[in-house]
Amino acid sequence: MIYVLNGPNLNRLGTREPAVYGSATYSDLVDICESTAEDLGVTVEVKQTNAEHEMIDWLHRAADEGADVVLNAGAWTHYSIAVRDACAMLGGKLVEVHISNIHTREEFRHHSVISGVATGVIVGLGFDGYRLALEHIAR
Amino acid sequence: MIYVLNGPNLNRLGTREPAVYGSATYSDLVDICESTAEDLGVTVEVKQTNAEHEMIDWLHRAADEGADVVLNAGAWTHYSIAVRDACAMLGGKLVEVHISNIHTREEFRHHSVISGVATGVIVGLGFDGYRLALEHIAR
Amino acid sequence: MIYVLNGPNLNRLGTREPAVYGSATYSDLVDICESTAEDLGVTVEVKQTNAEHEMIDWLHRAADEGADVVLNAGAWTHYSIAVRDACAMLGGKLVEVHISNIHTREEFRHHSVISGVATGVIVGLGFDGYRLALEHIAR
Amino acid sequence: MIYVLNGPNLNRLGTREPAVYGSATYSDLVDICESTAEDLGVTVEVKQTNAEHEMIDWLHRAADEGADVVLNAGAWTHYSIAVRDACAMLGGKLVEVHISNIHTREEFRHHSVISGVATGVIVGLGFDGYRLALEHIAR
Amino acid sequence: MIYVLNGPNLNRLGTREPAVYGSATYSDLVDICESTAEDLGVTVEVKQTNAEHEMIDWLHRAADEGADVVLNAGAWTHYSIAVRDACAMLGGKLVEVHISNIHTREEFRHHSVISGVATGVIVGLGFDGYRLALEHIAR
Amino acid sequence: MIYVLNGPNLNRLGTREPAVYGSATYSDLVDICESTAEDLGVTVEVKQTNAEHEMIDWLHRAADEGADVVLNAGAWTHYSIAVRDACAMLGGKLVEVHISNIHTREEFRHHSVISGVATGVIVGLGFDGYRLALEHIAR
Amino acid sequence: MIYVLNGPNLNRLGTREPAVYGSATYSDLVDICESTAEDLGVTVEVKQTNAEHEMIDWLHRAADEGADVVLNAGAWTHYSIAVRDACAMLGGKLVEVHISNIHTREEFRHHSVISGVATGVIVGLGFDGYRLALEHIAR
Amino acid sequence: MIYVLNGPNLNRLGTREPAVYGSATYSDLVDICESTAEDLGVTVEVKQTNAEHEMIDWLHRAADEGADVVLNAGAWTHYSIAVRDACAMLGGKLVEVHISNIHTREEFRHHSVISGVATGVIVGLGFDGYRLALEHIAR
Amino acid sequence: MIYVLNGPNLNRLGTREPAVYGSATYSDLVDICESTAEDLGVTVEVKQTNAEHEMIDWLHRAADEGADVVLNAGAWTHYSIAVRDACAMLGGKLVEVHISNIHTREEFRHHSVISGVATGVIVGLGFDGYRLALEHIAR
Amino acid sequence: MIYVLNGPNLNRLGTREPAVYGSATYSDLVDICESTAEDLGVTVEVKQTNAEHEMIDWLHRAADEGADVVLNAGAWTHYSIAVRDACAMLGGKLVEVHISNIHTREEFRHHSVISGVATGVIVGLGFDGYRLALEHIAR
Amino acid sequence: MIYVLNGPNLNRLGTREPAVYGSATYSDLVDICESTAEDLGVTVEVKQTNAEHEMIDWLHRAADEGADVVLNAGAWTHYSIAVRDACAMLGGKLVEVHISNIHTREEFRHHSVISGVATGVIVGLGFDGYRLALEHIAR
Amino acid sequence: MIYVLNGPNLNRLGTREPAVYGSATYSDLVDICESTAEDLGVTVEVKQTNAEHEMIDWLHRAADEGADVVLNAGAWTHYSIAVRDACAMLGGKLVEVHISNIHTREEFRHHSVISGVATGVIVGLGFDGYRLALEHIAR
Repeated sequence: MIYVLNGPNLNRLGTREPAVYGSATYSDLVDICESTAEDLGVTVEVKQTNAEHEMIDWLHRAADEGADVVLNAGAWTHYSIAVRDACAMLGGKLVEVHISNIHTREEFRHHSVISGVATGVIVGLGFDGYRLALEHIAR
Repeated sequence: MIYVLNGPNLNRLGTREPAVYGSATYSDLVDICESTAEDLGVTVEVKQTNAEHEMIDWLHRAADEGADVVLNAGAWTHYSIAVRDACAMLGGKLVEVHISNIHTREEFRHHSVISGVATGVIVGLGFDGYRLALEHIAR
Repeated sequence: MIYVLNGPNLNRLGTREPAVYGSATYSDLVDICESTAEDLGVTVEVKQTNAEHEMIDWLHRAADEGADVVLNAGAWTHYSIAVRDACAMLGGKLVEVHISNIHTREEFRHHSVISGVATGVIVGLGFDGYRLALEHIAR
Repeated sequence: MIYVLNGPNLNRLGTREPAVYGSATYSDLVDICESTAEDLGVTVEVKQTNAEHEMIDWLHRAADEGADVVLNAGAWTHYSIAVRDACAMLGGKLVEVHISNIHTREEFRHHSVISGVATGVIVGLGFDGYRLALEHIAR
Repeated sequence: MIYVLNGPNLNRLGTREPAVYGSATYSDLVDICESTAEDLGVTVEVKQTNAEHEMIDWLHRAADEGADVVLNAGAWTHYSIAVRDACAMLGGKLVEVHISNIHTREEFRHHSVISGVATGVIVGLGFDGYRLALEHIAR
Repeated sequence: MIYVLNGPNLNRLGTREPAVYGSATYSDLVDICESTAEDLGVTVEVKQTNAEHEMIDWLHRAADEGADVVLNAGAWTHYSIAVRDACAMLGGKLVEVHISNIHTREEFRHHSVISGVATGVIVGLGFDGYRLALEHIAR
Repeated sequence: MIYVLNGPNLNRLGTREPAVYGSATYSDLVDICESTAEDLGVTVEVKQTNAEHEMIDWLHRAADEGADVVLNAGAWTHYSIAVRDACAMLGGKLVEVHISNIHTREEFRHHSVISGVATGVIVGLGFDGYRLALEHIAR
Repeated sequence: MIYVLNGPNLNRLGTREPAVYGSATYSDLVDICESTAEDLGVTVEVKQTNAEHEMIDWLHRAADEGADVVLNAGAWTHYSIAVRDACAMLGGKLVEVHISNIHTREEFRHHSVISGVATGVIVGLGFDGYRLALEHIAR
Repeated sequence: MIYVLNGPNLNRLGTREPAVYGSATYSDLVDICESTAEDLGVTVEVKQTNAEHEMIDWLHRAADEGADVVLNAGAWTHYSIAVRDACAMLGGKLVEVHISNIHTREEFRHHSVISGVATGVIVGLGFDGYRLALEHIAR
Repeated sequence: MIYVLNGPNLNRLGTREPAVYGSATYSDLVDICESTAEDLGVTVEVKQTNAEHEMIDWLHRAADEGADVVLNAGAWTHYSIAVRDACAMLGGKLVEVHISNIHTREEFRHHSVISGVATGVIVGLGFDGYRLALEHIAR
Repeated sequence: MIYVLNGPNLNRLGTREPAVYGSATYSDLVDICESTAEDLGVTVEVKQTNAEHEMIDWLHRAADEGADVVLNAGAWTHYSIAVRDACAMLGGKLVEVHISNIHTREEFRHHSVISGVATGVIVGLGFDGYRLALEHIAR
Repeated sequence: MIYVLNGPNLNRLGTREPAVYGSATYSDLVDICESTAEDLGVTVEVKQTNAEHEMIDWLHRAADEGADVVLNAGAWTHYSIAVRDACAMLGGKLVEVHISNIHTREEFRHHSVISGVATGVIVGLGFDGYRLALEHIAR
């Protein structure tokens, strides 16, 4: 099982700042992840939440199952040490993904509190970042 | 519709540090907002939550409706980039309000992560700040 | 008596960076303040100066009279501790006003040396900020 | 009544980074607190949550009851000003506890936003820190 | 044409800090890139240099040809604004790749002067990062 | 043997800033430590010095004996790396104690150069902090 | 019309720190500017003031006339945002000039609040900097 | 001739923040300086201005006369590099005086841009600081 | 002999970011320098390199010949202390030139490691900066 | 009784860096203090030590006696919080004195950890600073 | 084999800033190294380059041979992470040498990016530093 | 006479953190220094103290005798400006020695307050650093 976990405001893809995130919607994202998983012969569960505690619970579950995780923590990326601590418990791979290139945006988006406990990070490649993360884990 | 959204601990007004916030209660605040709205001939919905995800959901709804927002994000003002990102989606006006003068308090209260996506900010004028924010939006 | 005091370059409103400040002129601003005062039944004196010492003298006078002040210190906001010290002498209310949202502009405009001695601050609501400040004081 | 409140990821004790936190579990921690309370002749309620809003609600209740609190805010220690503000409302004692020595870990764990409103802090003494905190309050 | 350009010390892969970079060699890396390119039906040219001026010349050529670039600038990532400026001239895509997770290493490796002009960044996924970068460009 | 070592100005307890440290004297502190030790069935030696070299010598002796140490290094806490280095030699436990809550005092008191080599730290619990430290070591 | 505007203490050239500024006087500077202007066939008006408000007024006039400006703001260079704001209104060219090389002097002289709104800057070339600025504008 | 020059807001002594500056007035200060001068057999000229340019002019005159100066630059102390530059021209002694102890006040008052070009500084000794400065110069 | 030395990427003028640098090419720049030199009756040698060591060698030669140098070090301006050290050996004049106004660009372009050893600096005046530098040296 | 206490290396006056401190010796300083005291009709005790603990003991004694202190803490000024804490216990006046102008020396000498608990500070007036301090206390 | 590797501008010894580096030349340095080696009975190869890539290549060769290195990286010391990374590959000893005392020079020379991967560092002992480094390695 | 002076905790060599300092003892160090001195035909006096004042006294004596000094100030290296000031009085050479490579240890050990007044520094070469320092002085 690979979990694809999405943080706050990502349910708004397509509506939210299309200049930054493109016009494809969250449900398009789910489709891409699921069809990629199918192609790769792996099982994937794609989820989104605006609640920090729900994200933490999902990460605990993934830790219990030894599952791999693709994580776009959204804005929490920059301050939620609670999410980071939950990530640190994972036994499987953790690939951090950001749709836009956070390094070309506001200064406070340049730093991630999660990268230090991730396996790797994919930034700025749009929805394709999720696909690449899944391919990496599947290999 | 104008949403008046209040963040963590603001349900404790009157009890919480009266030296800083005065002795009027949260329900007094709701009354002031509602009667001001009535005077101005606008509809207002006043809400409070201690849960970041609930605040984000309310902001998403306001964005969908193109509504204006008066926001006192309480302590989230200083770190919740998730709330900021939700604010950035608003099509209507966003007036950030703080009851006390945050610039005369602890250093960490001097910076707001929300101001950068707000229309304007009213600080230190007590409950009257909400009234002025509503008047500004109504005009 | 309420003094509405404006600092450097504000006499250029309408001409100065209309993208930031709008096309209304300083004399429009004076009109708004005066008609607001009339509506509120208070006396107002609206003044502008490019000279720090003149601003300081006006603040001394306001201190002597126990008057309230609406202050847009313009660029001095960010460095004139001399103006701050004069503000600290006021016995009446001091509402700091900025026409544009200084938090969305250059980094050096994000900090005000005056807010620490003000009653409150209104930022980014255009000329309406003056009107709201007068209403607050009049109440 | 003394509340022993635990923040995010602490339900994972025993599983979570045993090199840092030891192999005893959260339920061992509850036992230690409860048996200490019994020895001291005080009533204790031990709780854990991954949700910031739930922690805030518990702190509000403690404030209403004038109760003392032993708080291990976990990762929130380092950024949740909302939790700090709720702590500031307490009328009883507040002893901040950390199981591991946060000063020997990552730089971002060296600073607590809560200590400034606590009665005192106990760091690095393992589960025994809870016991000592209860003893201190009981005396 | 897609250029895969590698900066200083990357010719030492396999010998250099195997604990960090693994034991596969630079020539293994070339093979992976070339076979991936073949699979994808694209042409790739894989090169390595320890000379900043040679890297700049290659980037100029890529800019002239409107080619896409996969760039692992090695240590230059952290200080060579000259390489950054050459990258900024590219008309095609630029995917920045790092073999190891630079965010878990020394503080000075956490900042890249190149990310600000890249399309995206892939960090910490080993040689697979190159493969993913090529796939992204090829799609 | 447990050493309770006190640094500069602590011989002035009772006289020194009673608003911060209370009115109990240094000799009261010695009594508390000694009676606690008796209760716990351990031997304790309580000492105070204003001389850094004497403190270092005592720590060396404790290191030689493999003894545990309760240390209130007073102002040295914030700058004496020499005392820190001596602490680093200890084989037994080292509990750092501060009578007042240093996190609610001047900025320069928020950082301890000693915590990084201590087992744990107890802050702000008055003389009781010594008692708790002894209990912890005795267990 | 080209205005050559000089800020505080520049009337003291020749007397002021000759080791830094040379022994030529302010009136020599005026002569150089006027004769250069004559050579170039342009009209120039050279002025100096120690009063910030006078400088601001001159800049307003230049803005009204769409004139070009050569500005040596002296010490205001480093803190007068009011002068900067007046400069930002200019429609013509603004060449910032400094007689000495400010980058080889005290740290606080290395930063100019004006350069960000200037067309260009000439530093360290003595009085010749004014001549070059005039030539540039005249071309 | 010794000049005793006072900067902004010092004409308000006695009225201004008596808790900080005491209740004696500016005219009391003039008297103290003049009678001290008489006792010492020196001539003194005591002046105050809120205008930076006037202060600069006075300093230029003192420089021309080779006179000594006692300077309380008030708030300019912390930012007016223009006043500093004028001070740097003095051939006589320059004693910087502050009535209150600026090191026990706001952080931004701890730094003086003038001290680096002064002969010496007297801080926190009230009006007596002027007397001592005059005595020092007279000796 | 006057050397006009250009650093990395400047061979790309005309192609490189025309919005910043204009559409004139490097060969236009050479022409301007050479014709200016002819007008001034001086000999000039205009060179460009992307290799730091070549630039250093040229500066050594200029030092040996006691020649003057006009230097646009491009991106090296911001980090190449090696180029700075070579500049420090020059006996003749060194005029640092930048085509664009580096103070209106990214933060990291605001600082030059070379200015501290230059005679003077000309910024933001386009190719004309080279002409003015040559005129200054020729005078 | 007024104590004049001198810290490390001040016994070397006359020998130590005469360019900075002049050629008068420590014993000259004692003479000046004693004869000033005689003139003022006060008793003075002038002491010097290189040992922090001895200085702390002297300050404790002065605190016990309610005596005033003139303190030149030498290098401790910049780091000895232990000396600061002892100073904070004084009931009498504390005048901090520095012979040289510490603001024109190395950056690390610009900050004093003692000024925050002193009555006032006299800097840069040579041995005369001691005399003025005694006069101030005697008045 | 021991390599003695010298970075940019060191070929200019004797000519370059003799006040800092003395009048002995680079060829004198080579002689000293070679005769020291002869005395010690070791083989030494002394080289200098202004090209970063050449230095990197030499370090790679030394790594392959397991040779010891004496390195004076000149200005690269302060920014070339590429050279640092090459140093990190060495299996033998690496002694970093600086002829002048970099700690008494400009602030930016106080930090070395290389020291963190060196065996040791010798600073400020002139050419003798090389001799001592060779002796150390030979022992 | 050459003094070899050692600061706090160095009497513990062999016992103290053998992983960092090796297992040789302080008395081994004395032997190495004395036998080296004998070989070099110079007189050496090797001393150690944990008392800052004793170190200062020894440095004063060395200054009086015009002697050279080899100094390992231990932890004082990083904060004792008093020791630095005593070092600044030396007429002979001062070679600062550190046994371990302080640049590979904690951040706070990277800075020495003494290097700025030393002739040179030897770091990380173990006890051999003392031998090299003596050889350098003897030459």
